[in-house]
Amino acid sequence: MKTSIGPRAIIQPNPVLIVGSYDQNDRPNIMAVAWGGICCSKPPCAAISLRKATYTYGSIQHNRAFTINIPSTSFVKEADYVGIYSGKNEDKFKALGLTPVKSEVVNAPYVKEFSLILECEVLKIVEIGLHTQFIGEIKDIKADESILAENGLPDIEKLQPFIYDSAGPGYYALGNFLGEPYSVGRKK
Amino acid sequence: MKTSIGPRAIIQPNPVLIVGSYDQNDRPNIMAVAWGGICCSKPPCAAISLRKATYTYGSIQHNRAFTINIPSTSFVKEADYVGIYSGKNEDKFKALGLTPVKSEVVNAPYVKEFSLILECEVLKIVEIGLHTQFIGEIKDIKADESILAENGLPDIEKLQPFIYDSAGPGYYALGNFLGEPYSVGRKK
Repeated sequence: MKTSIGPRAIIQPNPVLIVGSYDQNDRPNIMAVAWGGICCSKPPCAAISLRKATYTYGSIQHNRAFTINIPSTSFVKEADYVGIYSGKNEDKFKALGLTPVKSEVVNAPYVKEFSLILECEVLKIVEIGLHTQFIGEIKDIKADESILAENGLPDIEKLQPFIYDSAGPGYYALGNFLGEPYSVGRKK
Repeated sequence: MKTSIGPRAIIQPNPVLIVGSYDQNDRPNIMAVAWGGICCSKPPCAAISLRKATYTYGSIQHNRAFTINIPSTSFVKEADYVGIYSGKNEDKFKALGLTPVKSEVVNAPYVKEFSLILECEVLKIVEIGLHTQFIGEIKDIKADESILAENGLPDIEKLQPFIYDSAGPGYYALGNFLGEPYSVGRKK
């Protein structure tokens, strides 16, 4: 029996995306974005949704570029911190002992200590409601060599990214491998 | 040391979203969508990205409504199946022994056997590239009572949704609870 729980912003699971940008004085900043993900394969694009009230909103409007930094489970506290506090009032890189690195392909900084980075240039800005969606073309992905699989792509088991659940709310680790896509459901 | 792996559509982790729609003859259909997630809190909205070549693309253009059905790990094979085969050629509900239920709030069917359902009405259509993004306003969420937490919201540990990794590729289960958002990173 299904129960109506009303219109709410819940999808389970959700990734944890840390967005890097320069502000209008070229100060590097990072924030945790609750809503986002890949939105196109060709050109490869990722979307992030921001409230106009966030400091990052003005920065991305100004530079039209951002990075998406995927933290591993060892950075749960840092990821949570950058979702709580605003870059308007402090240097979050410094507060957390993280290192900003200027991307060579877009005008945005990334987090050196995080192992998987998407470098994005704003392609479209979509006004939705409380949130504005920035669709960024992924100009390159940078990954630590230590997390690469034999196929040259990021190995999720080495990366150990984590999950944000807005309903609990909670952060969760990655669990067991369940099967191979485009294979486990194939007709015999 | 970071390595460039080129522009690619990779974010880890990614949800598994099964999209329900009626075709132009009111036949219910479901497909697995690789790219999507929440994109606005108010009004609550979810985005899904579809290639024009998919059967669901024409259905959603026609009815301007869809459901997002979140499968539990017991439905890995079914979720994979509906990502491989097209509704153009067969009735996927029938092939899998799943039950279509007509939503009472939007003109789209949902999967009775899946425990968490978002009922969406198309608010915006965004042309990006190979994929078109459908932004749907979440008019209601339906959940099986058996997966609700004490706060009345879906309990991710009871739902046991799973993760799609496009890089491996692989499906993964949910892992351990790591901490509480807006709490673990708070200044002492």
